[in-house]
Amino acid sequence: MLRFECDYGEGAHPRILQKLVETNLEQTPGYGLDPYCESAAARIRSLCGTPDADVHFLVGGTQTNTTVIAAILRPWQGAIATSEGHIAVHETGAIEASGHKVLTLPSHDAKMDAAELRAHCTAHFADDSSEHTVQPGLIYISHPTESGTLYSLAELKAIRAVCSEFHLPLFIDGARLAYGLAAEGTDVTLTDIAHLSDVFYIGGTKVGALFGEAVVITNDALKKDFRYMIKQRGGMLAKGRLLGIQFDTLLKDNLYFQLGEHADQLAMKIRGSCLGKGLSLYVDSPTNQQFVVFPDKLLEKLEKDFSFSFIAKPDSTHTVVRICTSWATTESSVQTLCSAISNL
Amino acid sequence: MLRFECDYGEGAHPRILQKLVETNLEQTPGYGLDPYCESAAARIRSLCGTPDADVHFLVGGTQTNTTVIAAILRPWQGAIATSEGHIAVHETGAIEASGHKVLTLPSHDAKMDAAELRAHCTAHFADDSSEHTVQPGLIYISHPTESGTLYSLAELKAIRAVCSEFHLPLFIDGARLAYGLAAEGTDVTLTDIAHLSDVFYIGGTKVGALFGEAVVITNDALKKDFRYMIKQRGGMLAKGRLLGIQFDTLLKDNLYFQLGEHADQLAMKIRGSCLGKGLSLYVDSPTNQQFVVFPDKLLEKLEKDFSFSFIAKPDSTHTVVRICTSWATTESSVQTLCSAISNL
Amino acid sequence: MLRFECDYGEGAHPRILQKLVETNLEQTPGYGLDPYCESAAARIRSLCGTPDADVHFLVGGTQTNTTVIAAILRPWQGAIATSEGHIAVHETGAIEASGHKVLTLPSHDAKMDAAELRAHCTAHFADDSSEHTVQPGLIYISHPTESGTLYSLAELKAIRAVCSEFHLPLFIDGARLAYGLAAEGTDVTLTDIAHLSDVFYIGGTKVGALFGEAVVITNDALKKDFRYMIKQRGGMLAKGRLLGIQFDTLLKDNLYFQLGEHADQLAMKIRGSCLGKGLSLYVDSPTNQQFVVFPDKLLEKLEKDFSFSFIAKPDSTHTVVRICTSWATTESSVQTLCSAISNL
Amino acid sequence: MLRFECDYGEGAHPRILQKLVETNLEQTPGYGLDPYCESAAARIRSLCGTPDADVHFLVGGTQTNTTVIAAILRPWQGAIATSEGHIAVHETGAIEASGHKVLTLPSHDAKMDAAELRAHCTAHFADDSSEHTVQPGLIYISHPTESGTLYSLAELKAIRAVCSEFHLPLFIDGARLAYGLAAEGTDVTLTDIAHLSDVFYIGGTKVGALFGEAVVITNDALKKDFRYMIKQRGGMLAKGRLLGIQFDTLLKDNLYFQLGEHADQLAMKIRGSCLGKGLSLYVDSPTNQQFVVFPDKLLEKLEKDFSFSFIAKPDSTHTVVRICTSWATTESSVQTLCSAISNL
Repeated sequence: MLRFECDYGEGAHPRILQKLVETNLEQTPGYGLDPYCESAAARIRSLCGTPDADVHFLVGGTQTNTTVIAAILRPWQGAIATSEGHIAVHETGAIEASGHKVLTLPSHDAKMDAAELRAHCTAHFADDSSEHTVQPGLIYISHPTESGTLYSLAELKAIRAVCSEFHLPLFIDGARLAYGLAAEGTDVTLTDIAHLSDVFYIGGTKVGALFGEAVVITNDALKKDFRYMIKQRGGMLAKGRLLGIQFDTLLKDNLYFQLGEHADQLAMKIRGSCLGKGLSLYVDSPTNQQFVVFPDKLLEKLEKDFSFSFIAKPDSTHTVVRICTSWATTESSVQTLCSAISNL
Repeated sequence: MLRFECDYGEGAHPRILQKLVETNLEQTPGYGLDPYCESAAARIRSLCGTPDADVHFLVGGTQTNTTVIAAILRPWQGAIATSEGHIAVHETGAIEASGHKVLTLPSHDAKMDAAELRAHCTAHFADDSSEHTVQPGLIYISHPTESGTLYSLAELKAIRAVCSEFHLPLFIDGARLAYGLAAEGTDVTLTDIAHLSDVFYIGGTKVGALFGEAVVITNDALKKDFRYMIKQRGGMLAKGRLLGIQFDTLLKDNLYFQLGEHADQLAMKIRGSCLGKGLSLYVDSPTNQQFVVFPDKLLEKLEKDFSFSFIAKPDSTHTVVRICTSWATTESSVQTLCSAISNL
Repeated sequence: MLRFECDYGEGAHPRILQKLVETNLEQTPGYGLDPYCESAAARIRSLCGTPDADVHFLVGGTQTNTTVIAAILRPWQGAIATSEGHIAVHETGAIEASGHKVLTLPSHDAKMDAAELRAHCTAHFADDSSEHTVQPGLIYISHPTESGTLYSLAELKAIRAVCSEFHLPLFIDGARLAYGLAAEGTDVTLTDIAHLSDVFYIGGTKVGALFGEAVVITNDALKKDFRYMIKQRGGMLAKGRLLGIQFDTLLKDNLYFQLGEHADQLAMKIRGSCLGKGLSLYVDSPTNQQFVVFPDKLLEKLEKDFSFSFIAKPDSTHTVVRICTSWATTESSVQTLCSAISNL
Repeated sequence: MLRFECDYGEGAHPRILQKLVETNLEQTPGYGLDPYCESAAARIRSLCGTPDADVHFLVGGTQTNTTVIAAILRPWQGAIATSEGHIAVHETGAIEASGHKVLTLPSHDAKMDAAELRAHCTAHFADDSSEHTVQPGLIYISHPTESGTLYSLAELKAIRAVCSEFHLPLFIDGARLAYGLAAEGTDVTLTDIAHLSDVFYIGGTKVGALFGEAVVITNDALKKDFRYMIKQRGGMLAKGRLLGIQFDTLLKDNLYFQLGEHADQLAMKIRGSCLGKGLSLYVDSPTNQQFVVFPDKLLEKLEKDFSFSFIAKPDSTHTVVRICTSWATTESSVQTLCSAISNL
């Protein structure tokens, strides 16, 4: 059985494990105040072109989303996301558990439309009984999105403009950032992400780390006291250096970006096989997640040897599944899958 | 500089790293539904003598405390702890952030007194305007406590009796459990802990794991839907197997208990040196944390080569520090410290 | 200017004020433990045919919704409402502030469809990764709805059946209950509401009281400790008897139901005038709230003498407004409005 | 039975009821946006000498405390109060339910000591691992306190100085403010309260209103969006004018202050009787709440005709009760009580 169901099925890139082994018996201060975290933070500031950014390392994505969002919002504010946003759907109400509504806008292949965002904000702040509804407090988008799609630079700038107009911070969930930056045809770079957002994160869990998300805060107003928030929300790892070591390794010698490119190229091969076979795409994604519509009979055959994630049942005879590649996916396993698809 | 300030200054026991390396490229399902978690859970059920217990693996202590407590309590209930309880003092209000007050009882070297607990509960439930105050909803104790002290079996049973009388779950924080179970003279075993509590955890972070706490729920009423709670509170690690692998390794061949014994024996050597030098103990702890009162002048000298945690300043010329050993502390570094103390 | 914008524009029914004056200098225990609250609760139990129900009096609707919902749900659960549900839209995220997501289903003139509810619950509990999404924990509906519409008895029973199937409590918001029970053609009675729900409330604020909502809990499992919750959420009025006196007066001699009938009859006259004039209804409501589509030019004229609530702008030349009657609306003011509409 | 157990046993001052009757059928906008609220707010600004203050009317004390505190604090901050502070003890954990810890300092007859406050804040902000503990976010004191005691102007200024030093807002709970301002010997005026605090409230519930607390926000930084918070926390009364009418009446012609004086003078008579009888005071209070130690045998006799609140049982033969006067207490009932005490 070859697993293509997600991008977190294996451990970590070998260089990371090697570094963990090498440093294992060193003694360092806890809670992220060690030299490895410092070094990783310095690399991130440099790569982002944001010398004054604050960088913090958290363990997982849901934790990161909740911690960042709850740190920013005032009690009567909500986070605006699309109706497919990870925080709106797949975090068991973590944002609500912190006291805040997720306000949803329509999803366009999981992307937010700047004009719809402007319309929502305009309507709220123009309403003379606005205090009866949740006030927009920040904008949350994912890049790549939950459907693997990407914003163009123009689209990001349009969203940024609305944020600026209404003084709303922009928070970009980069859980799969490497796969977005490496996609063919994208015009969005890491420095764009860093400069257009107020806070974003560089995902490690799904891109070669054992775990870990690096939060980058560029907006000065959001920097103060963030460590209190990490501690309170359970994200302050006692052995914080494990995060520093991982990001320091990932961001050295372009490894992070190469892992993204590797996965995207393999995903494009799978996409090609599917299209070649006449299968249709549920969403057209240029990144490591492919959403493919299969006739149920073909899928049944394929699932004897490969595992995918179930996404939807668009009609009684078809099923949509997600096929993921990752930093760990091998050429040969993709070749095996592509052959199997072609031979269906 | 030799560090004795905490028990989480190094990485993980080498057997754990080795196992992580060996399994690194295996593909497993995520979120704790893998064979390693299953195996570790089975070991724990067996060691505890609780074949029906639910076992869950979380990342860190604050997260575990909040997740368990918030899962148990109803909104108008609080957790009873001592005034030195970790949840009362050192978690940045994580319990309160989940909506619940920490109700504090006096600390007796960080231990709770069963009679005082009974008096508090009796008074609350006898008050005919009890709805104006927070209702006790569970009892939280640590074993070893935050001061390294231990409950005797009789003391634990007395607390258990109060819990049963008032139908209040008992939650035991076992962040340093190994160091408690291995202490000389203790009459409390792992099966006692498992049978006297409704839920407890076996700490990994401070006993040889990179990170991780194993929650054991023995009370059927508390089992339902706990995975929702882990996910919502950010504790469901995508690569959950990392936790399974670590606990599976720690609990194999008695490693966990041996690490506890190792650290306790070294702590007793340090304790002996301090007493031999005429220093007094702030708390008399039989476990890996020693709380020692130093004249400031002696401490200054010692701190040129060794680091400790500052605890208190009992008067203008003395300081209390915490000296920790751990699974990773070596005989030779303890010897160096003991010599330095003797030669002060 | 005659105000038809809402049903809470005046004070209280004169009998209530008279009773408040008569009892003003009596001394009673506080916090709802007085004889007036007892008497009102007894009337409610009797009128509902639920001799064992617990009855509590709270001050306002948002407070009541939050208190009831937060008392019922566990942290990982949400309340299911329609997308127009008051809790989903008009309470500034009060439910989320208590930690819970409002899960929305489509609105059919503000009503929930039992089949869609069943489909949602079935899908959630059948999902083998259900712990990643919010668990349905209770069903919230309003009767009358936010659009003035009413469930038929068959529709209520169908929703009740889904609730029973999935062991989910049904909470009915009766902020305007009198206007629903008195509507022409309804086959739903107060005893139906009481027997089909697990908890509901009889609204006072919008039906002749100065303020006040009477919560009726019929499900034994939801009764325990509810007074703690009222106190914690700020709903326990020190002079609780003010609520008892008001409901005791409203529910004596059928006053409450007569006020409902009065308002509904006047609303039907307004409806008739609008239809007679060829205006269309945005929603066809049999109760005291009428939602009418006006050409902007006609509306401008009318708004010189009458005030309504703005609801929507369906196109560039039309506006939807809400026209409300209430217990306090007079025949003559309705006559004035109807003439004005006819003469437009 | 004459009731002296609390200061909210009767309805409202007759002038308030009269005004409610007079205005009953007027139509006004809801939610506090009516002319009566405007007028009452203008009176308050004028009486306080704070022309730019924001004034909001809420229903009850617990609600007001929670709404103000939760509006001010960031998630990692707590409110500092004394260990007897109402928010620390008698609100069923309402502050914690909003996510914030109540940090307690020693109570000196329910008063906070400025030096202890400074020491706490200094220690917190000097700690280099301060993020592991709750950050002080505001200071909460009551005037009069829960024990009826009063701060001197010098004491208030000392607390204010600490607040300013650490940039912490000062919130004064004035639930019984009238009884404090009218006390013999106090040197604290309403304008002092308004100028030394960042936000405070003028209590109505316990001083002649049916209900209601008037929140006065003088610190510009705390004004924004407060109406959202009132709505979300259930404190925005639909018929908000009821609050405006009550405060407009109370604050006209010095009624509020006269009611305070009336109650204080009667309380001093009771105090005199108790001292004359040789009874001791549990706390020496110059306001309407008297805390008296009775031998149990004498108390038993007295409680046949009078009701008090139980406070404590200092030993096996004595009991402390609270004896309250209020705006509604009559000379004759106090005379009856004083005679009964003298004749014990």
